[in-house]
Amino acid sequence: MRMYDIIEKKRDKKELTKEEIEFFVQGYSKGDIPDYQASALLMAIFLNKMTSEELVNLTFAMANSSKRLDLSQINREGKYIVDKHSTGGVGDKVTLIVLPIVASLGVDVCKMSGRGLGITGGTADKLESIVGYDVDIPLERAINQVKDIGVCLISQSKDIAIADKKMYALRDTTATVESIDLIASSIMSKKIASGADKILLDVTVGSGAFMKTLEDAKKLASTMVNIGKLANIETRAIITSMSEPLGRSVGNALEVKEVISFLLSDDETLFSDSLKDLREVVFMISAYMIKMAGCGDDIEENKIKIKEAITSKAAYDKFIELVKAQGGHIYNVYMDWIGMSLDMPVLKDKAKYLKEIKAQSTGTVVSIDSKKIGEALVCLGGGRNKTDDIIDPAVGFEFIKKVGDKVNEGDTILTCIYNDKEKFAQAFDYIEDAIYINKVNDEISKGLKEKPIILDII
Amino acid sequence: MRMYDIIEKKRDKKELTKEEIEFFVQGYSKGDIPDYQASALLMAIFLNKMTSEELVNLTFAMANSSKRLDLSQINREGKYIVDKHSTGGVGDKVTLIVLPIVASLGVDVCKMSGRGLGITGGTADKLESIVGYDVDIPLERAINQVKDIGVCLISQSKDIAIADKKMYALRDTTATVESIDLIASSIMSKKIASGADKILLDVTVGSGAFMKTLEDAKKLASTMVNIGKLANIETRAIITSMSEPLGRSVGNALEVKEVISFLLSDDETLFSDSLKDLREVVFMISAYMIKMAGCGDDIEENKIKIKEAITSKAAYDKFIELVKAQGGHIYNVYMDWIGMSLDMPVLKDKAKYLKEIKAQSTGTVVSIDSKKIGEALVCLGGGRNKTDDIIDPAVGFEFIKKVGDKVNEGDTILTCIYNDKEKFAQAFDYIEDAIYINKVNDEISKGLKEKPIILDII
Repeated sequence: MRMYDIIEKKRDKKELTKEEIEFFVQGYSKGDIPDYQASALLMAIFLNKMTSEELVNLTFAMANSSKRLDLSQINREGKYIVDKHSTGGVGDKVTLIVLPIVASLGVDVCKMSGRGLGITGGTADKLESIVGYDVDIPLERAINQVKDIGVCLISQSKDIAIADKKMYALRDTTATVESIDLIASSIMSKKIASGADKILLDVTVGSGAFMKTLEDAKKLASTMVNIGKLANIETRAIITSMSEPLGRSVGNALEVKEVISFLLSDDETLFSDSLKDLREVVFMISAYMIKMAGCGDDIEENKIKIKEAITSKAAYDKFIELVKAQGGHIYNVYMDWIGMSLDMPVLKDKAKYLKEIKAQSTGTVVSIDSKKIGEALVCLGGGRNKTDDIIDPAVGFEFIKKVGDKVNEGDTILTCIYNDKEKFAQAFDYIEDAIYINKVNDEISKGLKEKPIILDII
Repeated sequence: MRMYDIIEKKRDKKELTKEEIEFFVQGYSKGDIPDYQASALLMAIFLNKMTSEELVNLTFAMANSSKRLDLSQINREGKYIVDKHSTGGVGDKVTLIVLPIVASLGVDVCKMSGRGLGITGGTADKLESIVGYDVDIPLERAINQVKDIGVCLISQSKDIAIADKKMYALRDTTATVESIDLIASSIMSKKIASGADKILLDVTVGSGAFMKTLEDAKKLASTMVNIGKLANIETRAIITSMSEPLGRSVGNALEVKEVISFLLSDDETLFSDSLKDLREVVFMISAYMIKMAGCGDDIEENKIKIKEAITSKAAYDKFIELVKAQGGHIYNVYMDWIGMSLDMPVLKDKAKYLKEIKAQSTGTVVSIDSKKIGEALVCLGGGRNKTDDIIDPAVGFEFIKKVGDKVNEGDTILTCIYNDKEKFAQAFDYIEDAIYINKVNDEISKGLKEKPIILDII
């Protein structure tokens, strides 16, 4: 078999066999196939697409390119282990809330999360804004932790899906990242190598997401669901909006604070308007995780259980249990407003400056561009340009107003927390650009406020 | 400017600017742009094509990537210097005949020719089958030789169009050779760097050529003519058939022998059936070279001059002058059949074995596949698999029968000249495969014999 013939075949829109795809993935992982041949093939795949059959073969070849996580030691007791994955976004702290909720309801989760790159945040980075939290515990210890407390949250292991890592780095320099086929097989290969029985995908759509249009997001979601089906791994995708940042905060420590506050909600605050977008995503993802795990078939009933897990503080207790298990520092504080003492994680949230960003005019907040907010966070040092950049966990934004809110000129739209005045100056242009206020009638205002966040379920 | 953005733009079917194309060609020639980015761009160009404007810019960027041949010292005296280029084939010895003809008629030619690779022969290799002939004389000496005797024939200089060489080597390993856009700009960049005023292209079509269909050959021809037009360099293309090998011989020394014999033709032999295909191509190319050089506007009149140049031996004398000027060894022999003594080049034509290949059945020769004959020559050692292979100049084939000839079982179709029995055994399968004899009616036989060799002029 020759790599030349494989490139030529895909160039001519022909279907590659399982053996040809394995020859490529194995040869490239081992370094037998040079980068320049791999990049020519990847561009041909980008432009000529792959069939479902090819995609499954590519996904498995990548999943099998190195070690797979073995979760067989975890006793299923008639349940299934479900892995949750988000295609990423700005202010996406869903994993940090969902995992303690479902774990508190008896659903075991062993999750590997990525680091942030560009405008997309990473759950591993967010967890590291907790002093002492170790995202890099050995895999064996992670599995034991799931057996003990039903949950672990670690960073993507370097030894898993090596081919995907090498290929992603090449795609990143040859303009072949934005291929639905290649994104789908990259995600699915990592998930399959992570050893779960079933996969639940949160496919985000909007300016701050990989997929900019609902059409593309649906295509990506069905491509992944189809790979799962052909691979005999039950896979579902929930398509969620990422046009404005999710929730009220963007930035690593600030998002952990929002997670804590969310998990400490009572009946009233939980269903307040201000939690709407985050609550809807959290409830839907959690409800489907419970269903897929075999712990409750009815989505609406699951949502009631989720509400109770939050308001009873069971989910919060599970979160603290997780933080403690992975070395996170905790302090105890007496909370006046709930009349009890609570364990709280110690956060790396010390920032020097705080600046309120005001409305320049009176009207309704028509849009808050999540891409630009993501770029502003990178400017502040809260995100990465290159994989080896060191991030500042404390910086970021807290939104006082969201899309659909009416504002008067001079009202605070958001608060910016930062450590470096020059970086703030750079970020400021993006922030100003991100917010669009206009005079619209009440009906439109209401429409903006009530626009759906769950766009589809596949 | 970033190479990433250039790849992305072409990937998305957008037009690259002159500056972007120059950035790529210069950066790649210098080694600033890595192979893996260049191959991704080349695949995107292969699949998404280029506009005429882009092609001209690519061609000039490559022509300017290194030294250009300066022919300004050659006094034009109201004439133009025309460069002739063939897209290559099997048995293609046209350059070796055309150049002495037109030079003997006062048309100056300074031509660089390539080496053979794969099934395609190279004029530089053919010349080297003459003992002593130096294809690598310095460019300055070559120009002086044109001033002295009106003709030089040297190998493609290593210093000319360096970007094209580097890019071709990369395309050769990444399945991006067969792109009409990239072939056109590669050829035209070499021709423009070679300094001629006008360009005449022989675009071959058939199994033994780069272009397999007339449609593709026309596309390649008009792409090159269009580049020439936009570059303000008059360019014409003659499309010729390469379905059966051209003329009666294939192999380096054997083809030089055929050249000598052709140039020694008298009125009768020159217009015999057996020279038909070669004569038609030689006359048409020569007539257009004379016209484009400004030495005769009427093609039919030029053909009469060409006939006289041959039958008067003026063209042959010019050939011997060329061979002597570049160090080729000559011996003098008294030729009974023409009743005079003649200078003849000394050829490296010593081969150990000769084998007649016989017809397996009675009928008409319906086809002789030039690709398979080319492959058989490579088997014998007369062609190259890799650019650094050393070739055997003596080996090859002489055709007794051509397409359209009637044969009886056991008649000799061709003679194979070789030096190695094992290599002959390998070649034999290709030869057997190349020849197709069938019983057809007289009308079809006649049609095959009279099929046109000049397919179009653009």
